[in-house]
Amino acid sequence: MGKISVCLSPALIHLHDIKNSIVVVIDIFRASTSMCYGIANGAVGIIPVAEVSTCAIYKDHGYLLAAERNGEVVDGFDFGNSPFSYVEEKVKGKTIVLTTTNGTKAIHLSKEAKCVVVGSFLNLTALCSWLNRQQDDIILVCAGWKDNFNLEDTVFAGAVIHRLEAQHTKDDAAIAAESLYLTAADNLHQYLEQSAHSARLKHLGVQKDIDFCLQIDILQSIPILKGDRLVALEY
Amino acid sequence: MGKISVCLSPALIHLHDIKNSIVVVIDIFRASTSMCYGIANGAVGIIPVAEVSTCAIYKDHGYLLAAERNGEVVDGFDFGNSPFSYVEEKVKGKTIVLTTTNGTKAIHLSKEAKCVVVGSFLNLTALCSWLNRQQDDIILVCAGWKDNFNLEDTVFAGAVIHRLEAQHTKDDAAIAAESLYLTAADNLHQYLEQSAHSARLKHLGVQKDIDFCLQIDILQSIPILKGDRLVALEY
Repeated sequence: MGKISVCLSPALIHLHDIKNSIVVVIDIFRASTSMCYGIANGAVGIIPVAEVSTCAIYKDHGYLLAAERNGEVVDGFDFGNSPFSYVEEKVKGKTIVLTTTNGTKAIHLSKEAKCVVVGSFLNLTALCSWLNRQQDDIILVCAGWKDNFNLEDTVFAGAVIHRLEAQHTKDDAAIAAESLYLTAADNLHQYLEQSAHSARLKHLGVQKDIDFCLQIDILQSIPILKGDRLVALEY
Repeated sequence: MGKISVCLSPALIHLHDIKNSIVVVIDIFRASTSMCYGIANGAVGIIPVAEVSTCAIYKDHGYLLAAERNGEVVDGFDFGNSPFSYVEEKVKGKTIVLTTTNGTKAIHLSKEAKCVVVGSFLNLTALCSWLNRQQDDIILVCAGWKDNFNLEDTVFAGAVIHRLEAQHTKDDAAIAAESLYLTAADNLHQYLEQSAHSARLKHLGVQKDIDFCLQIDILQSIPILKGDRLVALEY
Protein backbone atom coordinates (compact mmCIF):
# COMPACT_ATOMS: atom_id res chain seq x y z
CA MET A 1 0.00 0.00 0.00
CA GLY A 2 1.58 3.26 -1.11
CA LYS A 3 1.60 6.53 0.74
CA ILE A 4 0.10 9.80 -0.38
CA SER A 5 1.23 13.01 1.28
CA VAL A 6 0.48 16.65 0.74
CA CYS A 7 3.21 19.25 1.15
CA LEU A 8 1.18 22.36 2.03
CA SER A 9 3.99 24.84 1.41
CA PRO A 10 7.38 24.74 -0.36
CA ALA A 11 8.82 25.69 3.06
CA LEU A 12 7.84 22.25 4.35
CA ILE A 13 9.31 20.21 1.52
CA HIS A 14 12.31 19.06 3.58
CA LEU A 15 9.87 17.02 5.70
CA HIS A 16 9.03 14.81 2.72
CA ASP A 17 10.90 11.91 1.14
CA ILE A 18 11.02 13.54 -2.28
CA LYS A 19 13.73 11.25 -3.68
CA ASN A 20 11.66 8.10 -3.44
CA SER A 21 8.38 9.54 -4.66
CA ILE A 22 6.42 10.80 -7.59
CA VAL A 23 5.86 14.53 -7.09
CA VAL A 24 2.87 16.38 -8.50
CA VAL A 25 3.49 20.14 -8.53
CA ILE A 26 0.35 22.22 -8.09
CA ASP A 27 0.00 25.97 -8.64
CA ILE A 28 -3.61 26.35 -9.74
CA PHE A 29 -3.63 30.17 -10.01
CA ARG A 30 -1.93 30.06 -12.52
CA ALA A 31 1.46 28.51 -13.28
CA SER A 32 0.61 24.81 -13.26
CA THR A 33 -2.61 25.46 -15.18
CA SER A 34 -0.70 27.39 -17.84
CA MET A 35 2.00 24.72 -18.06
CA CYS A 36 -0.62 22.03 -18.69
CA TYR A 37 -2.37 24.22 -21.24
CA GLY A 38 0.85 25.18 -23.01
CA ILE A 39 2.04 21.59 -23.33
CA ALA A 40 -1.41 20.53 -24.54
CA ASN A 41 -1.27 23.29 -27.14
CA GLY A 42 1.94 21.97 -28.63
CA ALA A 43 4.73 23.74 -26.75
CA VAL A 44 7.77 21.50 -27.29
CA GLY A 45 9.05 22.22 -23.80
CA ILE A 46 8.76 24.58 -20.86
CA ILE A 47 11.97 25.33 -18.99
CA PRO A 48 11.15 26.43 -15.44
CA VAL A 49 13.80 28.73 -14.00
CA ALA A 50 13.90 30.21 -10.52
CA GLU A 51 15.06 33.75 -11.28
CA VAL A 52 13.98 36.48 -13.68
CA SER A 53 17.68 37.10 -14.46
CA THR A 54 18.11 33.45 -15.50
CA CYS A 55 15.08 33.71 -17.75
CA ALA A 56 16.59 36.78 -19.43
CA ILE A 57 19.75 34.83 -20.38
CA TYR A 58 17.68 32.85 -22.90
CA LYS A 59 16.81 36.02 -24.83
CA ASP A 60 17.57 36.08 -28.57
CA HIS A 61 17.99 32.31 -28.76
CA GLY A 62 14.57 31.51 -30.17
CA TYR A 63 12.78 30.90 -26.89
CA LEU A 64 9.57 32.46 -25.71
CA LEU A 65 10.32 34.17 -22.43
CA ALA A 66 7.69 34.20 -19.72
CA ALA A 67 8.18 35.91 -16.37
CA GLU A 68 5.66 36.65 -13.65
CA ARG A 69 6.20 38.27 -10.28
CA ASN A 70 3.44 39.18 -7.84
CA GLY A 71 0.81 38.26 -10.40
CA GLU A 72 2.04 40.53 -13.18
CA VAL A 73 4.14 40.14 -16.34
CA VAL A 74 7.68 41.36 -15.71
CA ASP A 75 8.61 44.26 -18.01
CA GLY A 76 10.46 43.20 -21.15
CA PHE A 77 9.13 39.62 -21.29
CA ASP A 78 6.85 38.05 -23.89
CA PHE A 79 4.24 37.08 -21.32
CA GLY A 80 3.64 35.97 -17.73
CA ASN A 81 1.61 33.06 -16.45
CA SER A 82 -1.88 33.88 -17.65
CA PRO A 83 -3.23 30.76 -19.39
CA PHE A 84 -4.49 32.95 -22.24
CA SER A 85 -0.88 33.45 -23.26
CA TYR A 86 -0.40 29.70 -23.73
CA VAL A 87 -2.75 29.22 -26.67
CA GLU A 88 -1.78 27.18 -29.73
CA GLU A 89 -1.12 30.22 -31.95
CA LYS A 90 1.51 31.44 -29.55
CA VAL A 91 3.20 28.32 -28.23
CA LYS A 92 2.95 25.52 -30.81
CA GLY A 93 6.41 24.25 -31.71
CA LYS A 94 8.05 26.67 -29.28
CA THR A 95 10.11 26.22 -26.16
CA ILE A 96 9.12 28.52 -23.34
CA VAL A 97 11.43 29.65 -20.55
CA LEU A 98 9.29 30.46 -17.53
CA THR A 99 9.79 31.93 -14.08
CA THR A 100 6.91 32.54 -11.68
CA THR A 101 6.54 33.65 -8.07
CA ASN A 102 5.70 30.21 -6.70
CA GLY A 103 5.23 27.44 -9.25
CA THR A 104 8.69 27.29 -10.78
CA LYS A 105 10.23 27.39 -7.29
CA ALA A 106 8.14 24.37 -6.29
CA ILE A 107 9.39 22.49 -9.37
CA HIS A 108 13.00 23.32 -8.53
CA LEU A 109 12.60 22.12 -4.96
CA SER A 110 11.11 18.86 -6.26
CA LYS A 111 13.61 17.99 -8.96
CA GLU A 112 15.34 15.22 -6.99
CA ALA A 113 12.10 13.23 -7.10
CA LYS A 114 11.75 9.94 -8.99
CA CYS A 115 9.50 11.85 -11.30
CA VAL A 116 7.93 15.34 -11.35
CA VAL A 117 4.62 15.91 -13.11
CA VAL A 118 2.35 18.95 -13.20
CA GLY A 119 -1.30 18.97 -12.21
CA SER A 120 -4.23 21.32 -12.69
CA PHE A 121 -8.00 21.06 -12.86
CA LEU A 122 -7.59 21.08 -16.66
CA ASN A 123 -5.94 17.63 -16.66
CA LEU A 124 -7.29 16.25 -13.38
CA THR A 125 -8.74 12.95 -14.60
CA ALA A 126 -5.85 12.27 -17.01
CA LEU A 127 -3.39 12.86 -14.17
CA CYS A 128 -5.29 10.65 -11.71
CA SER A 129 -5.67 7.84 -14.26
CA TRP A 130 -1.92 7.89 -14.72
CA LEU A 131 -1.23 8.07 -10.96
CA ASN A 132 -3.55 5.11 -10.48
CA ARG A 133 -1.20 3.04 -12.64
CA GLN A 134 1.92 3.93 -10.63
CA GLN A 135 3.30 2.01 -7.65
CA ASP A 136 5.43 4.67 -5.99
CA ASP A 137 4.54 6.89 -3.09
CA ILE A 138 3.04 10.20 -4.19
CA ILE A 139 3.69 13.69 -2.82
CA LEU A 140 1.39 16.50 -3.89
CA VAL A 141 3.41 19.72 -3.60
CA CYS A 142 1.32 22.86 -3.26
CA ALA A 143 3.22 25.89 -4.55
CA GLY A 144 1.24 28.21 -2.27
CA TRP A 145 1.97 31.93 -2.20
CA LYS A 146 5.43 32.98 -1.03
CA ASP A 147 5.59 29.92 1.23
CA ASN A 148 2.11 30.54 2.63
CA PHE A 149 -0.53 27.84 2.56
CA ASN A 150 -3.16 28.46 -0.08
CA LEU A 151 -6.65 27.21 -0.51
CA GLU A 152 -6.85 26.44 -4.22
CA ASP A 153 -3.72 24.29 -4.41
CA THR A 154 -4.82 22.30 -1.35
CA VAL A 155 -8.36 21.80 -2.65
CA PHE A 156 -6.90 20.51 -5.92
CA ALA A 157 -4.64 18.13 -3.97
CA GLY A 158 -7.80 16.87 -2.26
CA ALA A 159 -9.47 16.33 -5.63
CA VAL A 160 -6.55 14.12 -6.69
CA ILE A 161 -6.63 12.13 -3.46
CA HIS A 162 -10.36 11.62 -3.81
CA ARG A 163 -9.87 10.10 -7.26
CA LEU A 164 -7.13 7.61 -6.37
CA GLU A 165 -8.36 4.07 -6.49
CA ALA A 166 -5.82 2.24 -4.36
CA GLN A 167 -5.98 2.52 -0.59
CA HIS A 168 -3.06 4.83 0.05
CA THR A 169 -1.89 5.68 3.54
CA LYS A 170 -2.64 9.38 3.93
CA ASP A 171 -0.75 11.84 6.06
CA ASP A 172 -2.75 14.39 8.04
CA ALA A 173 -2.41 17.00 5.30
CA ALA A 174 -3.83 14.53 2.77
CA ILE A 175 -6.81 13.83 5.03
CA ALA A 176 -7.38 17.57 5.44
CA ALA A 177 -7.00 18.26 1.71
CA GLU A 178 -9.59 15.62 0.83
CA SER A 179 -12.02 17.05 3.41
CA LEU A 180 -11.54 20.52 1.96
CA TYR A 181 -12.15 19.22 -1.54
CA LEU A 182 -15.36 17.53 -0.41
CA THR A 183 -16.48 20.80 1.18
CA ALA A 184 -15.65 22.75 -1.97
CA ALA A 185 -16.56 20.27 -4.71
CA ASP A 186 -20.18 21.25 -5.24
CA ASN A 187 -19.32 24.88 -5.66
CA LEU A 188 -15.67 25.23 -6.44
CA HIS A 189 -15.88 28.80 -7.74
CA GLN A 190 -17.74 30.08 -4.73
CA TYR A 191 -15.53 28.27 -2.23
CA LEU A 192 -12.29 29.47 -3.79
CA GLU A 193 -13.61 32.99 -4.17
CA GLN A 194 -12.79 33.46 -0.49
CA SER A 195 -9.12 32.76 -1.10
CA ALA A 196 -6.44 35.40 -0.84
CA HIS A 197 -5.18 34.59 -4.32
CA SER A 198 -8.62 35.07 -5.88
CA ALA A 199 -8.74 38.50 -4.28
CA ARG A 200 -5.25 39.25 -5.58
CA LEU A 201 -6.09 38.22 -9.14
CA LYS A 202 -9.40 40.07 -9.12
CA HIS A 203 -7.53 43.15 -8.00
CA LEU A 204 -5.29 42.70 -11.06
CA GLY A 205 -8.39 42.44 -13.25
CA VAL A 206 -7.92 38.83 -14.25
CA GLN A 207 -11.17 37.22 -13.09
CA LYS A 208 -11.31 35.42 -16.44
CA ASP A 209 -8.03 33.70 -15.55
CA ILE A 210 -9.62 32.33 -12.37
CA ASP A 211 -12.59 30.97 -14.32
CA PHE A 212 -10.24 29.42 -16.87
CA CYS A 213 -8.14 27.72 -14.19
CA LEU A 214 -11.22 26.09 -12.61
CA GLN A 215 -12.31 24.24 -15.75
CA ILE A 216 -12.18 20.51 -15.11
CA ASP A 217 -10.88 17.92 -17.59
CA ILE A 218 -10.62 19.98 -20.74
CA LEU A 219 -7.35 18.32 -21.74
CA GLN A 220 -5.38 15.08 -21.53
CA SER A 221 -1.75 16.21 -21.46
CA ILE A 222 0.47 15.75 -18.44
CA PRO A 223 3.67 17.79 -18.32
CA ILE A 224 6.62 15.81 -16.94
CA LEU A 225 10.08 17.09 -16.04
CA LYS A 226 12.80 15.60 -18.26
CA GLY A 227 16.18 17.13 -17.55
CA ASP A 228 15.74 20.88 -17.38
CA ARG A 229 12.33 21.04 -19.05
CA LEU A 230 8.72 20.02 -18.90
CA VAL A 231 7.57 17.98 -21.89
CA ALA A 232 4.44 16.00 -22.66
CA LEU A 233 4.34 12.69 -20.79
CA GLU A 234 3.89 9.82 -23.21
CA TYR A 235 1.42 7.40 -21.75
CA MET B 1 -11.64 44.77 11.44
CA GLY B 2 -8.91 42.54 12.88
CA LYS B 3 -7.16 39.69 11.15
CA ILE B 4 -7.16 36.07 12.16
CA SER B 5 -4.48 33.77 10.78
CA VAL B 6 -3.55 30.18 11.32
CA CYS B 7 0.09 29.12 11.38
CA LEU B 8 -0.17 25.47 10.33
CA SER B 9 3.34 24.51 11.42
CA PRO B 10 6.03 26.07 13.63
CA ALA B 11 8.21 26.00 10.49
CA LEU B 12 5.96 28.66 8.93
CA ILE B 13 5.94 31.05 11.88
CA HIS B 14 8.35 33.50 10.21
CA LEU B 15 5.56 34.28 7.72
CA HIS B 16 3.41 35.78 10.48
CA ASP B 17 3.54 39.15 12.19
CA ILE B 18 3.91 37.65 15.65
CA LYS B 19 5.05 40.87 17.34
CA ASN B 20 1.85 42.74 16.72
CA SER B 21 -0.56 39.93 17.51
CA ILE B 22 -2.12 37.81 20.20
CA VAL B 23 -0.86 34.26 19.75
CA VAL B 24 -2.83 31.20 20.80
CA VAL B 25 -0.59 28.14 21.04
CA ILE B 26 -2.34 24.87 20.24
CA ASP B 27 -1.04 21.36 20.87
CA ILE B 28 -4.18 19.34 21.45
CA PHE B 29 -2.52 15.92 21.86
CA ARG B 30 -1.40 16.71 24.60
CA ALA B 31 0.77 19.61 25.75
CA SER B 32 -1.66 22.52 25.48
CA THR B 33 -4.46 20.42 26.97
CA SER B 34 -2.27 19.46 29.92
CA MET B 35 -1.13 23.07 30.42
CA CYS B 36 -4.74 24.25 30.60
CA TYR B 37 -5.64 21.42 32.94
CA GLY B 38 -2.60 21.98 35.18
CA ILE B 39 -3.23 25.71 35.53
CA ALA B 40 -6.92 25.04 36.22
CA ASN B 41 -5.90 22.56 38.91
CA GLY B 42 -3.88 25.14 40.79
CA ALA B 43 -0.37 24.89 39.38
CA VAL B 44 1.23 28.25 40.25
CA GLY B 45 3.14 28.32 36.99
CA ILE B 46 4.38 26.18 34.12
CA ILE B 47 7.81 27.03 32.73
CA PRO B 48 8.07 25.79 29.14
CA VAL B 49 11.64 24.97 28.16
CA ALA B 50 12.90 23.83 24.79
CA GLU B 51 15.42 21.19 25.83
CA VAL B 52 15.37 18.19 28.13
CA SER B 53 18.80 19.29 29.45
CA THR B 54 17.38 22.71 30.41
CA CYS B 55 14.52 21.02 32.22
CA ALA B 56 17.01 18.91 34.20
CA ILE B 57 18.77 22.06 35.51
CA TYR B 58 15.72 22.80 37.66
CA LYS B 59 16.12 19.51 39.55
CA ASP B 60 16.28 19.68 43.37
CA HIS B 61 14.91 23.23 43.48
CA GLY B 62 11.34 22.33 44.39
CA TYR B 63 9.96 22.17 40.86
CA LEU B 64 7.99 19.37 39.31
CA LEU B 65 9.89 18.28 36.22
CA ALA B 66 7.95 17.17 33.18
CA ALA B 67 9.62 15.98 29.98
CA GLU B 68 8.13 14.27 26.97
CA ARG B 69 9.80 13.17 23.76
CA ASN B 70 8.11 11.18 20.99
CA GLY B 71 5.03 10.72 23.14
CA GLU B 72 6.78 9.16 26.14
CA VAL B 73 8.00 10.37 29.55
CA VAL B 74 11.77 10.92 29.44
CA ASP B 75 13.59 8.70 31.96
CA GLY B 76 14.30 10.38 35.27
CA PHE B 77 11.48 12.95 35.10
CA ASP B 78 8.39 13.22 37.31
CA PHE B 79 6.02 12.98 34.37
CA GLY B 80 5.47 13.81 30.70
CA ASN B 81 2.55 15.51 29.05
CA SER B 82 -0.33 13.16 29.80
CA PRO B 83 -3.16 15.28 31.22
CA PHE B 84 -3.68 12.65 33.94
CA SER B 85 -0.40 13.82 35.48
CA TYR B 86 -1.75 17.36 35.87
CA VAL B 87 -4.45 16.61 38.44
CA GLU B 88 -4.94 18.76 41.54
CA GLU B 89 -3.28 16.29 43.96
CA LYS B 90 -0.08 16.48 41.96
CA VAL B 91 0.16 20.08 40.78
CA LYS B 92 -1.68 22.36 43.23
CA GLY B 93 0.66 25.04 44.53
CA LYS B 94 3.54 23.71 42.45
CA THR B 95 5.57 25.17 39.61
CA ILE B 96 6.14 22.75 36.75
CA VAL B 97 9.07 22.87 34.35
CA LEU B 98 7.96 21.27 31.09
CA THR B 99 9.56 20.32 27.81
CA THR B 100 7.62 18.55 25.05
CA THR B 101 8.28 17.50 21.45
CA ASN B 102 6.18 20.23 19.88
CA GLY B 103 4.16 22.41 22.24
CA THR B 104 6.91 24.06 24.23
CA LYS B 105 8.79 24.77 20.99
CA ALA B 106 5.73 26.56 19.60
CA ILE B 107 5.55 28.70 22.75
CA HIS B 108 9.22 29.63 22.46
CA LEU B 109 8.83 30.63 18.82
CA SER B 110 5.85 32.82 19.80
CA LYS B 111 7.28 34.64 22.77
CA GLU B 112 7.83 37.95 20.97
CA ALA B 113 4.05 38.26 20.57
CA LYS B 114 2.00 40.96 22.30
CA CYS B 115 0.56 38.15 24.34
CA VAL B 116 0.74 34.32 24.28
CA VAL B 117 -2.15 32.26 25.59
CA VAL B 118 -2.77 28.52 25.46
CA GLY B 119 -5.84 26.89 23.99
CA SER B 120 -7.42 23.44 24.15
CA PHE B 121 -10.87 21.97 23.78
CA LEU B 122 -11.04 22.00 27.60
CA ASN B 123 -11.14 25.82 27.73
CA LEU B 124 -12.51 26.55 24.24
CA THR B 125 -15.45 28.78 25.15
CA ALA B 126 -13.55 30.63 27.89
CA LEU B 127 -10.74 31.32 25.44
CA CYS B 128 -13.07 32.49 22.68
CA SER B 129 -15.03 34.75 25.04
CA TRP B 130 -11.77 36.39 26.03
CA LEU B 131 -10.56 36.66 22.41
CA ASN B 132 -13.89 38.26 21.51
CA ARG B 133 -13.06 41.10 23.90
CA GLN B 134 -9.61 41.79 22.36
CA GLN B 135 -8.87 44.21 19.56
CA ASP B 136 -5.55 42.89 18.28
CA ASP B 137 -4.93 40.58 15.36
CA ILE B 138 -4.90 36.92 16.34
CA ILE B 139 -2.57 34.16 15.19
CA LEU B 140 -3.46 30.58 16.03
CA VAL B 141 -0.18 28.64 16.13
CA CYS B 142 -0.54 24.91 15.60
CA ALA B 143 2.32 23.03 17.25
CA GLY B 144 1.94 20.14 14.81
CA TRP B 145 4.28 17.14 14.96
CA LYS B 146 7.95 17.84 14.31
CA ASP B 147 7.02 20.71 11.99
CA ASN B 148 4.43 18.63 10.15
CA PHE B 149 0.87 19.82 9.76
CA ASN B 150 -1.50 17.99 12.05
CA LEU B 151 -5.21 17.50 11.94
CA GLU B 152 -6.24 17.97 15.57
CA ASP B 153 -4.50 21.31 16.11
CA THR B 154 -5.95 22.67 12.87
CA VAL B 155 -9.47 21.47 13.64
CA PHE B 156 -9.21 23.17 17.04
CA ALA B 157 -8.04 26.39 15.35
CA GLY B 158 -11.15 26.14 13.19
CA ALA B 159 -13.34 25.74 16.28
CA VAL B 160 -11.91 29.00 17.65
CA ILE B 161 -12.44 30.85 14.37
CA HIS B 162 -16.00 29.59 14.19
CA ARG B 163 -16.72 31.06 17.63
CA LEU B 164 -15.33 34.54 17.03
CA GLU B 165 -18.04 37.14 16.86
CA ALA B 166 -16.35 39.98 15.03
CA GLN B 167 -15.84 39.79 11.29
CA HIS B 168 -12.14 39.08 11.13
CA THR B 169 -10.24 38.96 7.86
CA LYS B 170 -9.18 35.34 7.50
CA ASP B 171 -6.10 34.09 5.75
CA ASP B 172 -6.44 30.96 3.59
CA ALA B 173 -5.32 28.72 6.43
CA ALA B 174 -8.04 30.19 8.66
CA ILE B 175 -10.68 29.54 6.00
CA ALA B 176 -9.42 25.96 5.63
CA ALA B 177 -9.28 25.39 9.41
CA GLU B 178 -12.87 26.53 9.84
CA SER B 179 -14.01 24.25 7.00
CA LEU B 180 -12.21 21.32 8.60
CA TYR B 181 -13.82 22.08 11.94
CA LEU B 182 -17.25 22.17 10.33
CA THR B 183 -16.54 18.80 8.72
CA ALA B 184 -15.35 17.34 12.02
CA ALA B 185 -17.65 19.04 14.54
CA ASP B 186 -20.46 16.49 14.59
CA ASN B 187 -18.11 13.65 15.24
CA LEU B 188 -14.84 14.98 16.51
CA HIS B 189 -13.60 11.66 17.90
CA GLN B 190 -14.25 9.77 14.71
CA TYR B 191 -12.78 12.47 12.48
CA LEU B 192 -9.60 12.82 14.51
CA GLU B 193 -9.21 9.08 14.81
CA GLN B 194 -7.77 9.16 11.30
CA SER B 195 -4.93 11.42 12.39
CA ALA B 196 -1.33 10.30 12.59
CA HIS B 197 -1.07 11.47 16.18
CA SER B 198 -4.10 9.43 17.26
CA ALA B 199 -2.41 6.37 15.78
CA ARG B 200 0.82 7.26 17.57
CA LEU B 201 -0.89 7.68 20.95
CA LYS B 202 -2.95 4.51 20.53
CA HIS B 203 0.25 2.67 19.78
CA LEU B 204 1.60 4.00 23.09
CA GLY B 205 -1.54 2.73 24.83
CA VAL B 206 -2.92 6.13 25.78
CA GLN B 207 -6.35 6.11 24.12
CA LYS B 208 -7.76 7.54 27.37
CA ASP B 209 -5.54 10.61 26.87
CA ILE B 210 -7.13 11.21 23.45
CA ASP B 211 -10.62 10.99 24.93
CA PHE B 212 -9.61 13.36 27.73
CA CYS B 213 -8.17 15.92 25.29
CA LEU B 214 -11.39 16.03 23.27
CA GLN B 215 -13.62 17.07 26.17
CA ILE B 216 -15.12 20.47 25.43
CA ASP B 217 -15.50 23.28 27.98
CA ILE B 218 -14.75 21.46 31.20
CA LEU B 219 -12.76 24.40 32.58
CA GLN B 220 -12.47 28.18 32.51
CA SER B 221 -8.75 28.83 32.98
CA ILE B 222 -6.61 30.36 30.28
CA PRO B 223 -2.84 30.00 30.68
CA ILE B 224 -0.96 33.14 29.66
CA LEU B 225 2.79 33.59 29.27
CA LYS B 226 4.20 36.08 31.80
CA GLY B 227 7.97 36.30 31.60
CA ASP B 228 9.31 32.75 31.50
CA ARG B 229 6.16 31.01 32.70
CA LEU B 230 2.53 30.28 32.02
CA VAL B 231 0.20 31.47 34.75
CA ALA B 232 -3.58 31.79 35.02
CA LEU B 233 -4.90 34.75 33.04
CA GLU B 234 -6.93 37.03 35.29
CA TYR B 235 -10.00 38.11 33.42
